[in-house]
Amino acid sequence: MAIDIIGLDADDTLWHSEGQFHVSEQRFRELMAPWVEDDELTSSTLLATERRNLELFGYGAKGFTLSMIETALALTDHRVDGRRIEQIIGFGKEILAHPVELIDGVRETVAELAERYRLVLITKGDLFHQESKIAASGLGDLFDQVDVVSEKDPATYAKSLLRLGGSADRFCMVGNSLKSDVLPAVELGARGIHVPYHITWALEQVEATDHPGWCTAQSIVEVPAIIERWNT
Amino acid sequence: MAIDIIGLDADDTLWHSEGQFHVSEQRFRELMAPWVEDDELTSSTLLATERRNLELFGYGAKGFTLSMIETALALTDHRVDGRRIEQIIGFGKEILAHPVELIDGVRETVAELAERYRLVLITKGDLFHQESKIAASGLGDLFDQVDVVSEKDPATYAKSLLRLGGSADRFCMVGNSLKSDVLPAVELGARGIHVPYHITWALEQVEATDHPGWCTAQSIVEVPAIIERWNT
Repeated sequence: MAIDIIGLDADDTLWHSEGQFHVSEQRFRELMAPWVEDDELTSSTLLATERRNLELFGYGAKGFTLSMIETALALTDHRVDGRRIEQIIGFGKEILAHPVELIDGVRETVAELAERYRLVLITKGDLFHQESKIAASGLGDLFDQVDVVSEKDPATYAKSLLRLGGSADRFCMVGNSLKSDVLPAVELGARGIHVPYHITWALEQVEATDHPGWCTAQSIVEVPAIIERWNT
Repeated sequence: MAIDIIGLDADDTLWHSEGQFHVSEQRFRELMAPWVEDDELTSSTLLATERRNLELFGYGAKGFTLSMIETALALTDHRVDGRRIEQIIGFGKEILAHPVELIDGVRETVAELAERYRLVLITKGDLFHQESKIAASGLGDLFDQVDVVSEKDPATYAKSLLRLGGSADRFCMVGNSLKSDVLPAVELGARGIHVPYHITWALEQVEATDHPGWCTAQSIVEVPAIIERWNT
């Protein structure tokens, strides 16, 4: 079946995101330096805290900020000072207030895809922050549907397709996360294009296994040609 | 025109919510007592912080928790200790983990409405937390559509109706907030039923003005009869 609906992930697929979390984590490591000799311990404790809090907080910058504060308390045996706590809140606010920077080639590629296919943006994270970024990106009008979701699994993709009146065998999902964007769509019977970003959050990392339903592109600009090839 | 779609708000309309924020705020006031003589100052400073952060954080428990921490730092000139910061994070987690308690009459009323009308749940707040609560409420299947939104204004309601293929003159929105649930729906040309909750968050308070498009009910159980009256 020919693909007629393209799903696009947002963070690190359309615009830069993980880099900002990465910068915050670097600053957080520096902040913890007086108490923690090994930087890696700061990062691994933070990751464990994030993982533990995921069920309550979900994804996004606010939960990340609360996890940083919790980690700071644990690593310093509650001795971290108020000024540092304030700085951590500042790191979170910087992520939330950071201007949207589109990844190279995104604007042209999304415009090109919008001429030929129906487009749906499917993204997880803080609803409020995601909507702000979509508005700031200037890309919102190119999408037929925008779905901010709390988790990306086959059921999520099925729901988005149902709303669009589309079917999995005519759907292709494009994103930087194999785990969240590509594999659950493929599991549903759709196709996927993995466009890796240079940083992947540890909780998004999976082992890649080959599958006829998906492929990897070096850049989003390759996406239109891949879909055209599949469609002919 | 006869009403055929009913919109329902969730927090403090279907289940208790503001009470949990209220309990947290009480505990937060106690926590600040060693530094702040007048409890009211704690509350007013917290409210000012929430208001200032709304643009970045949006609604919900995680933003509320970050605003409490920020307020604690301000009220204590950064001298608040780590144990107290940890307690504040605990207050936020309690809100997020709190079991869903339906308001009296909700289960029967929503089931009754679902037999006669199409229902849409329209709620704002943390996407992840709202979805958890909808799942835990056991009411999800009674709704034709669930929209977690970042702000409730006429455009939001228009979008929900567009997705449902409905029109404003056949829509009625039911909720505890005049400002968010009733007035923007009425502005769009729909009708509204205000079902007050015994606590209203300061940022949701508005002056009520009479309007033919909406009325007040003492309890959600009155809603089916009000709509039937409008429809005959």
